[in-house]
Amino acid sequence: MAKINQNFLKLNQDYLFSKILEETNKYKEKNPGKEVISLGIGDVSLPLVPTVIDAMHKAVDEMKDKETFRGYGLVQGYDFLIEKIIDVEYNSRGIDLGKDEVFISAGTKGDLAGIIELFSLDNTVALMDPVYPAYRDTNIMMGRDNITYLKGTEENSFSPELPNKPIDIIYLCSPNNPTGTVLTKEELKKWVDYAKENNSIILYDSVYECFITDNLVPHSIYEIEGAKEVAIEFRSYSKLAGFTGVRCSYTVVPKELRIENNEESLNNLWRRRQSTKFGAASYITQRAAEAIYSEEGQKQIKENIKYYQENAKYIKNELEKVGLTVYGGENSPYIWLKTPNNMKSWDFFDKLLNEAGVVGTPRSWIWQIRRRIF
Amino acid sequence: MAKINQNFLKLNQDYLFSKILEETNKYKEKNPGKEVISLGIGDVSLPLVPTVIDAMHKAVDEMKDKETFRGYGLVQGYDFLIEKIIDVEYNSRGIDLGKDEVFISAGTKGDLAGIIELFSLDNTVALMDPVYPAYRDTNIMMGRDNITYLKGTEENSFSPELPNKPIDIIYLCSPNNPTGTVLTKEELKKWVDYAKENNSIILYDSVYECFITDNLVPHSIYEIEGAKEVAIEFRSYSKLAGFTGVRCSYTVVPKELRIENNEESLNNLWRRRQSTKFGAASYITQRAAEAIYSEEGQKQIKENIKYYQENAKYIKNELEKVGLTVYGGENSPYIWLKTPNNMKSWDFFDKLLNEAGVVGTPRSWIWQIRRRIF
Repeated sequence: MAKINQNFLKLNQDYLFSKILEETNKYKEKNPGKEVISLGIGDVSLPLVPTVIDAMHKAVDEMKDKETFRGYGLVQGYDFLIEKIIDVEYNSRGIDLGKDEVFISAGTKGDLAGIIELFSLDNTVALMDPVYPAYRDTNIMMGRDNITYLKGTEENSFSPELPNKPIDIIYLCSPNNPTGTVLTKEELKKWVDYAKENNSIILYDSVYECFITDNLVPHSIYEIEGAKEVAIEFRSYSKLAGFTGVRCSYTVVPKELRIENNEESLNNLWRRRQSTKFGAASYITQRAAEAIYSEEGQKQIKENIKYYQENAKYIKNELEKVGLTVYGGENSPYIWLKTPNNMKSWDFFDKLLNEAGVVGTPRSWIWQIRRRIF
Repeated sequence: MAKINQNFLKLNQDYLFSKILEETNKYKEKNPGKEVISLGIGDVSLPLVPTVIDAMHKAVDEMKDKETFRGYGLVQGYDFLIEKIIDVEYNSRGIDLGKDEVFISAGTKGDLAGIIELFSLDNTVALMDPVYPAYRDTNIMMGRDNITYLKGTEENSFSPELPNKPIDIIYLCSPNNPTGTVLTKEELKKWVDYAKENNSIILYDSVYECFITDNLVPHSIYEIEGAKEVAIEFRSYSKLAGFTGVRCSYTVVPKELRIENNEESLNNLWRRRQSTKFGAASYITQRAAEAIYSEEGQKQIKENIKYYQENAKYIKNELEKVGLTVYGGENSPYIWLKTPNNMKSWDFFDKLLNEAGVVGTPRSWIWQIRRRIF
């Protein structure tokens, strides 16, 4: 008799997000015609830039002729994109990477879920709280539940201290989703040093790096010396170029990564995992991603990013004007606020929606809800 | 200290396919200008049909305006595609499905790898030999290695008998990759009955169903009464519409599926798995898939499928003319042949390449190699 994976039952019921939708819909029914501003999901609102649109049309046209048609691509991705990534995102910051260290994929969510399959179940895990909830859920689903939560609080400005014990796998998200806090070079160096000392692996989620404006905040963990020995980096085009509905991302798995006994490199294991479980990103999508690295493409996506940055800044300033304590909103599209008078986050969600028509994400819901959104 | 998943080390080294490439390249060097026909990878050779191209251009244009831009889509996929699938692929064959039973994805490979996460590691698994090697490798990677191989031989015409013991999870692939053999309605009914009797789950891979011409061969396992209680079905646009480089597929997880204690439905678990680990298929890709369901789209893809069917038939006939024993090639794009004079499959690979410029896939390599290709 087939038996289910009992680890799934350890997760909270997955239907709570329908409650946000329900509340939102209730509000809409009561207030017909009133605009609702949805800030609860980290989606983009601006359309794709013209350079990307042109590249996609061109790639679509290539698919209609036998001579230029592309079928199965190499699982790792096309060189035309990998080379641009290495050049623009890494070499320009003094980081050297080989073409076989960058893996193109169809969304960081899938890569974050896949990477932890390379590690045995008895590894210990540390993650910030609050943070993107899929980090936790994907580990629990596979039965790895030795998880240490590094609590983000007002006191530590949502930038938790190093763990007081050795941890095997550490998730870092900078700029952080959802608190908007960032790790400076100095702070990140502490994590890299900790990882070296404890032979830990850092899973570095930098999908929001394009929002960084502060020179003291690194865009890549590999800006820290020696990080290639301990860190895997995740990047996405979702926020960088508005690809939330297009689906493209990449993951850097350096060959220098040290692992127990060096019996097999993580780079090799990831290649093997991807070739067995992942079917490569769409050709058209990869051409779309390549297009943002042209001069015109860079100019256009930077204008869009500026728009989101200004929105965040505006919201932050206005919230502060009314006396609220606010985190993020600089170097990040996310704003994390302290509810006034210790109001419960759910109550504040209701207040925000009913009085201002704005949908947020209550902290108490995060672990239960956010995974349904992304 | 971070520790790797030792199950990965149970897999064969993943570099053997480079040997096919190496052999092929050697041949090309020795024979400059000579055409090599690659039959080793199940890729398509015809470009996308005009209806699909038009739909993609239209969808790309929607992405350039704020009003029509689409960001994050629901993980399950867009209704416009799900409704067409239910109508054309299922209702037309008398199969009723709910919209929440069809899950759009970006390739069957990922779905096949993902679905087995829903089951505990102590489930037993049965699969045909030979068959698409990812079935085996994905189980081994996660530590589920109680695998029964149902041997396909000349005697059973590569259609193995039922297992002589209860098995929890059974992979069926019809038309089979790579033998090209199919299960008739009568044969498939035996498997469904077996699954019901043993409370097994059948993972039914029917990605090649579009090549079926014989009325006795079902296109969907749900054509068998009661199959919804025991079977999950996998379908893809890769062969149906030449989407190998576009990436779109779907998986049917019926709500009727019975599972241990009924504590949670597999449909719910799959939704939870997908929402946590998968980022939805690209909007443009989903519009491309939708387009094949128009009258013109159906006509165009059927012409392409006919071309592959005729190729297969031609190869089969010519091989038989020279006295070879051949399987498949009807109801399937694949041809499986018995090497003459008990020649080893590797030797035959060399002979085929060197004397005819044709690349095949040797049986002795299948488990080691094929997973790198798809």
